[in-house]
Amino acid sequence: MGKLKVIFHVNETEQWSTALGNIINLLRDVGEGAADIVVLANGASVAAYAYSEKVDTMEMLSEKGVRFLACRNSLKKMCAEGAVCINEEALPPFITIVPAGITEIIRKQHEGYAYVKP
Amino acid sequence: MGKLKVIFHVNETEQWSTALGNIINLLRDVGEGAADIVVLANGASVAAYAYSEKVDTMEMLSEKGVRFLACRNSLKKMCAEGAVCINEEALPPFITIVPAGITEIIRKQHEGYAYVKP
Amino acid sequence: MGKLKVIFHVNETEQWSTALGNIINLLRDVGEGAADIVVLANGASVAAYAYSEKVDTMEMLSEKGVRFLACRNSLKKMCAEGAVCINEEALPPFITIVPAGITEIIRKQHEGYAYVKP
Repeated sequence: MGKLKVIFHVNETEQWSTALGNIINLLRDVGEGAADIVVLANGASVAAYAYSEKVDTMEMLSEKGVRFLACRNSLKKMCAEGAVCINEEALPPFITIVPAGITEIIRKQHEGYAYVKP
Repeated sequence: MGKLKVIFHVNETEQWSTALGNIINLLRDVGEGAADIVVLANGASVAAYAYSEKVDTMEMLSEKGVRFLACRNSLKKMCAEGAVCINEEALPPFITIVPAGITEIIRKQHEGYAYVKP
Repeated sequence: MGKLKVIFHVNETEQWSTALGNIINLLRDVGEGAADIVVLANGASVAAYAYSEKVDTMEMLSEKGVRFLACRNSLKKMCAEGAVCINEEALPPFITIVPAGITEIIRKQHEGYAYVKP
């Protein structure tokens, strides 16, 4: 079997801890080269990319090949609702912005990625 | 790539807002003709089909091709438990009843639909 | 169409009731021989295998062919964090321990199992 391809869908802030723990366990279990891991954050969870003590863990995982995506719709919505305005340029460089997170989740599954909702 | 096929699984009332927002973003991102969207409600979330200010949004989306399904097992269970009894005939006509929502979720994935749990 | 293959992902204790209800409905809807059902518990939900009045229902379902898996990482983590230490040998015999639940969830999807998060 080829690489274990998976997209983690994180849409609530409280799921980050579980999601990152899952990824650490996965890499430990199968080895860094054996998994193709994407994390898609939408909804309120995107704020953790800017304001969270978990960014260090995310960066460490990104250095092991894990890709972290942020939904632009969600960033805009949180700002419009007065929750928090995050400047895309201010996000850590290992994070990639996608226009619509939901499209990415669907496309990745059509490309053969498993889906996990932590 | 063909249409983006996806089934949204809504089993908690609080997920409706996120689910409908996801669908609006998806249609805006890829265009109405490019997505094949099914929403399956089971558990307590089915009551929103009868008692929710979100029905107008659902109907608007159904006119854009989104299919809304309700699990009959869940409707019966909510009535049996004394929560709320919803007459199937009283549901808006754009909603389709399926005998067991869980079967539908599995079948749709086997037919190539991506799965999203908002 | 062949068997309906599905993996249920249970990572919160509160999801057990919904998950078991889903499985009972599924078996009733399609018949026992028509579904290949795996339940993967990780996170705090693994404790239910040892301390829950739901074990009887699980055992009844296991006799109908449903496979129940427990994540060893989660068992270890709960013990290390002082929550609860569960001896693997003390678990009911119908439960199978897997080293990393997350790997199992991904592999099963790559093997054609649908994913359901109750």
